[in-house]
Order: sequence, then structure tokens, then C-alpha cells
Amino acid sequence: MRREDAARQLIVMKSAELFNVKGYAATSIQDIMEATGLTKGAVYRRFPSKDEIAGEAFDYAGRVLMEQVTSAVGRADTAIDKIMAICHVHVDPVNHPPIKGGCPLLNTAVECDDTMPILREKALAAYQELLRLVQGILEQGVSAGEIRGDADLEALSSFIVSSLEGSVMASRLSRDSKHVGIVMRQLRVLLSTYTPRKE
Amino acid sequence: MRREDAARQLIVMKSAELFNVKGYAATSIQDIMEATGLTKGAVYRRFPSKDEIAGEAFDYAGRVLMEQVTSAVGRADTAIDKIMAICHVHVDPVNHPPIKGGCPLLNTAVECDDTMPILREKALAAYQELLRLVQGILEQGVSAGEIRGDADLEALSSFIVSSLEGSVMASRLSRDSKHVGIVMRQLRVLLSTYTPRKE
Repeated sequence: MRREDAARQLIVMKSAELFNVKGYAATSIQDIMEATGLTKGAVYRRFPSKDEIAGEAFDYAGRVLMEQVTSAVGRADTAIDKIMAICHVHVDPVNHPPIKGGCPLLNTAVECDDTMPILREKALAAYQELLRLVQGILEQGVSAGEIRGDADLEALSSFIVSSLEGSVMASRLSRDSKHVGIVMRQLRVLLSTYTPRKE
Repeated sequence: MRREDAARQLIVMKSAELFNVKGYAATSIQDIMEATGLTKGAVYRRFPSKDEIAGEAFDYAGRVLMEQVTSAVGRADTAIDKIMAICHVHVDPVNHPPIKGGCPLLNTAVECDDTMPILREKALAAYQELLRLVQGILEQGVSAGEIRGDADLEALSSFIVSSLEGSVMASRLSRDSKHVGIVMRQLRVLLSTYTPRKE
């Protein structure tokens, strides 16, 4: 990697963490200078504004999250195990979040839904990608005869993602990851009710 | 109300909306001056800093939310209907949020969990109050013979609040309140599995 590219990448990675911990509005260029050890000039030579950094930082954070999710899915066999593997990426959001500060999708969605249209678009795209992934897994489960064909998979996907993201919020707020564990156990029970009845 | 108190109350109410829409970090004293029509001096005479306004504004927003929740619960008869009534406060977070900007508990929890200890404490207290309310309703449901005595009510309460708050996030992000509707339908089905089996 050229030195120029390495500095750019350092800004994106360190800013992604800062934004995910402190939020976009509360993170200053000064914070980014301190986290990267770069001068103001070195930062502004690469990015015209904090907004440009924020866009690339979310792309990076979303990619880190989706890589962990895809990799977890790849290690599981059945549809239900794949869904549980996705949840497992957030199993300990207090001590081992997928990226420092928690779930970037949740954090960006809540901070930016009303005020930062570009980041909202990016968070929405990440949310829809996650929904599609979950629904695709459930559809494969139906094809494989693991999940009943009459299940409303779109609604089920929405329910899975909502309860998971809400439990990440609850766990980070209370500094107790048990809320994700509770959602994971309940989702497993729920999904088992969608398995075909034994004849 | 004395004029002094009226101005103070105006600052708290308008700031609560601003903070809930834009977030704490992104809201400036200038925004508060514009929303209230007060001068900088008039604001600072009543509050030494934005942090003091933020604390009182969250107290106000939390009170508005809990009043709507308590009132909804009071109009329902059975335990399951009371839980659904709590969810119904968030039934249309896109067009009719309980307070402008969405759920103040969710917004404050996500923005402040890492960076603003006083607001995090307040959001945590509101979350715990909501959990206790839900669990209390479920306990009454057990006493009344509506809900099975072997249900893990603490876990069930956590699951209900997580899935509801996550669906508010999903609905506001996608500008489509259907995600709350999906969670409400699924929670009703879930709760019906906890009703005692007919002999």
C-alpha cells in the first residue's frame, strides 16, 4: 500500500471507531487527528470535510460487520443455525462488539434517521442487506424442508432483525449482554415452531 | 405559571424535541434559541449549560412517554392486551411517534451509552422502569391465571422490550411503520403460547 493510501485507510478505520463510540456529531476533526496522529492538513488533504470521512467510515464499518456475519453464516449448516450464527456476531455487545462502540447499523440508524440523509441512506442499505440475507437463508430453509412453506418469511426476517438490534441496544445500555442471549434463545424457540410437523 | 417558569418549561419542551430529532451533540444553544424565540442570555440565565438542559429535557421526554404508556395500559383489561397497549404507543413511529423524533429511550440510549454518563443513567432508569412495568403486568397475568406460572417472566419482559425498540429503529430508518406491526403480531402469538393449556 502506498503511504498516501495507508494514511487514508488509517483515517477511515480510526474514524469508524470514533463515530461508532461517540456518534458523528460529537466526533471532531481534532478527535480524528489525535486518534490517527495526523495533522489537520494531512486529514483535509485526503477528505474535504468530516461528512466525506463519515461516509467512507460507515462503508468500512458496515463491511467489517457484514464480513463477520457472512463468515459466521458460512460456518453453519442448517437455516436455523445460520440465523443463530448471525445473532452470535452480537452475542457480547458489551465486551466484544463486532466493531468498537457496538453495532454500526443501529448507531448510525438512530443518530442519522432524521438529520444526515447520506448516512441514513447507507444505514438503510445495510439494514436491507441484512434483511435480504436473513430472508434468503429462511427461503433456503424452506427449499431444504427445514422450515414450513406457509411461514411469512418477510415478516419473520423483519422480526429477527428488530429483536436482535433491540437487544443490542438493551445490552449496551445496561452493560449486560444477557439481553442478546435472551433474544437468541427466544428466536431459536420461535424458529423451531416453523419446522414442519413430523408425520 | 410565573413567566420565569413558563420560559423554563418552554426551553425544556422545545429542547426535548430537538434532542430527540437531532441528537444531543448536534443540537446547539442557537437551535434552542431559535425554537424558543429566547435570547442566549434568557436561556443561560435559566440553565448554566446545554448538559443541564439535556438532563431536564430527557426527564420531560421520558415522562411524556411513560404517561402515554401508563394511560394505554389503564385502558386495557387482560395482561396480554396491556402488553399490546404498550407496544401500541409506538404503532406508527414514522408519522405519530410518542414524541417528535421517535422513542426518546432508544435515541438517548444509543447516543449516550458510551459518552454521556448522566444521560445514559437516565435512559437506563427509563429502560428499567419499562421492564418492571412489563414484568409487573405479566406477573398479574400469572396471578389471574392468564399466563402460565412456569414462564420466565424476566426473560419474556426483556424480549418484549428489545423487539419493540428494535422495530422502532427499523421503522424510523426505513420510514415504514410495518416493522412495529410485525413485532406486535408476533408478540401476540408468542404471548398466546404462554396461556395455560385448556384441560
